[in-house]
Parts: sequence; structure tokens; C-alpha cells
Amino acid sequence: MNVIADFSVVPIGVGVSLSRYVAACQEVLEESGLSHRLHAYGTNIEGPWEEVFAVIRRCHERVHAMGAPRISTTIKVGTRIDRDQTLNDKVASVTSKLGGGG
Amino acid sequence: MNVIADFSVVPIGVGVSLSRYVAACQEVLEESGLSHRLHAYGTNIEGPWEEVFAVIRRCHERVHAMGAPRISTTIKVGTRIDRDQTLNDKVASVTSKLGGGG
Amino acid sequence: MNVIADFSVVPIGVGVSLSRYVAACQEVLEESGLSHRLHAYGTNIEGPWEEVFAVIRRCHERVHAMGAPRISTTIKVGTRIDRDQTLNDKVASVTSKLGGGG
Amino acid sequence: MNVIADFSVVPIGVGVSLSRYVAACQEVLEESGLSHRLHAYGTNIEGPWEEVFAVIRRCHERVHAMGAPRISTTIKVGTRIDRDQTLNDKVASVTSKLGGGG
Repeated sequence: MNVIADFSVVPIGVGVSLSRYVAACQEVLEESGLSHRLHAYGTNIEGPWEEVFAVIRRCHERVHAMGAPRISTTIKVGTRIDRDQTLNDKVASVTSKLGGGG
Repeated sequence: MNVIADFSVVPIGVGVSLSRYVAACQEVLEESGLSHRLHAYGTNIEGPWEEVFAVIRRCHERVHAMGAPRISTTIKVGTRIDRDQTLNDKVASVTSKLGGGG
Repeated sequence: MNVIADFSVVPIGVGVSLSRYVAACQEVLEESGLSHRLHAYGTNIEGPWEEVFAVIRRCHERVHAMGAPRISTTIKVGTRIDRDQTLNDKVASVTSKLGGGG
Repeated sequence: MNVIADFSVVPIGVGVSLSRYVAACQEVLEESGLSHRLHAYGTNIEGPWEEVFAVIRRCHERVHAMGAPRISTTIKVGTRIDRDQTLNDKVASVTSKLGGGG
């Protein structure tokens, strides 16, 4: 089962600056080979269910290994059986419907 | 790695009444043997990372099998390496701080 | 417009123990008079849109005032125009479908 | 209080294709004048707390007016009192910490 997901990892107990943990997580994503895209409040990712959640788990492991005692992550995950859809399709599908002046 | 998680499954394309899909998902949770608790906007669940996400996946499979072409699920997942914590601990930890001086 | 919502506040930069911040937020909820219910990964709340989000804002203000430099909150919010529904209705609607064959 | 937020609106009871509702919501965002950016599983937005949540409310109103009887929205909202931060800052802060090509 293929998924399109979005997740944002919040390390807890490591102070106020989180960007190096998010960057470490981006490196885990790079290593995974899965298609992904960073935005200002999370990362889009797509792939088989098992792989996507295994990658998010590796993010947790990496961030804990960097010293974060606790992590709270929010994930959105979409599946569909009517047709295939990619990250690009989803954005294109919306922008094609924006009207003249949208 | 043990997790405390919360998730809510939204079947798309099956009309406005979602409760029978949520109920089917509760039965998947029952079958799993994992500790879980329904609330008004999702379900708390705890257990090993792999098992928790395998159960959520089975919810998607069950709900798709019931006819939902598309599903969007929101998940929060917490991990910690400083100590163990259960669903009950989390609630108790907050309620102990309410009231006189909370 | 009435909403049923669920939210969980994660204070950042205040160490690993978050329960006293969550408890402070519960007190803001009590002061609001809105119907609400704590669970292990957030709080259910219902009421008019403006009031619910004003309460969540006051939680942020209270938690910042307690010293948290940064907060990340996840909110789910549901609205419907087909009929009224309360927190209790939502749970009852699911549990009525559990059991004999679900 | 300024916020950086991310939200995704899921209309329920209108069939499987949601993009025209998401597009309508993008138009509400355009009208608001707030800085925002669509991604594959939601939209980043920044601005004063009241304005951001008023815009999300207008999205609900617009989508209900288009015929959706029910909507479930997931929102992440971040506030900080230690310094100002924009959508661009958040992405730049992470990418600056990625290693040689990471």
C-alpha cells in the first residue's frame, strides 16, 4: 500500500533550537531514497507504508541518539485505492483548479 | 522502541457518516491486543513502534475493504528514552498537578 | 459555527517534563467554561469556533508566561452543518456500532 | 502573537475528489493577504493568531457553502517569544545545517 504522508518531528528536552535535529532527519530521508520535500512545518514523503514509517522511526532513533530524551511527532498519512497519486499530482490537482485571479 | 500514539482515521468518499468505519477500526485494535482507548476525536494506543503502525495500517486496509476509496489519517506519536510511560501515566501526571498550586 | 476539536500543546525549551504546562492549560480550559476532556495525548473540547481558538490561544499565552520560549501545538477541528453533535455523541456513535459483527 | 501554522482541510461527504475544495480554500488565503504556501499535504501560513484562525474559519465556511456537510481539519501552530521567525527562516534554518549536499 502506497502512501503520501507529511510529518514533523519535535524533539523535547534539547532547548529551543530544533533545526539541527530536523536537518539530521532530512539526512535520514536522503539515505532512504524515498521522494520527500521539506516545508516550513514538516516534510512531505511518499512510498510504501512500511518504508515510510520505517524512515520516520529512523528519524526518531537518530534524534534520540543526538541526545533528545523525548520526541513528539505529528504525521498525516493518506492512502487511496481508486488511483495512484504522487506528491506532485496533489499540488498540480489543486493549482489546476485555481481560477483566473485565484 | 515503545510509543504512545493517538490517531484518527477519516474515510473519504463514503458519505458523511463515519462511525461504522471507526467502529471497524476499533475491532482491529481489539484484535491487536494493544492497549488503546477511544475518545471523541481519535484513539490513544501504546505498544512497540512496529506493532502500533502495523495496526494503523490494518485499520486502513479494513476501511478500504469496506468500500472507502480514500483515507486521511492524523497520527501523533511520542517516544522517550529517559523512562517508560503508559497511557495512564500520562493522564495521571497532569491531573496530579491540577488544583492547589497546579 | 460550533466545533469539536482536539489539541495537544508541546512546550519547547523547558526540559523534558511537560505535565505542569499541560496542567496549566487544563486550568485555562476550566476557566473557559467550555466542555472539555483530557486524554493521554491531548484534550477534546467543544464550543463556538471563536471561543475554542481563543482558549487555545490563552493556553499558549499561559505556557509562554510560565517560561516556555516556544510552543508547537497540534489541533484537529471538525465542523458540520448537517446536524449538531457533541463530544459524547461522537463516542456513543462509534460504540453503538461495536459488538455483534460491528 | 504571531504564528507559523500549517493546516489541511478534509471535506467529508462530497465524494473522493477534494481538489476543488482545496482550491477554494487557496482563494480564501489569497483574499486574506497573509503569507502562505501550498504543499502536497496542506498549506503553510503565517500571521497574527486571530487572523490565521479567522482565515481557516473562512475556509470552513467556504467549503461548507460549496456543499460539504462536514469538514475535518488538522492544524499545527507554532508560537515563540524568543525571536521572530518567518516561513522562509524555518526552511533556511534547516537547510543551512544540511551537510555537503545532504
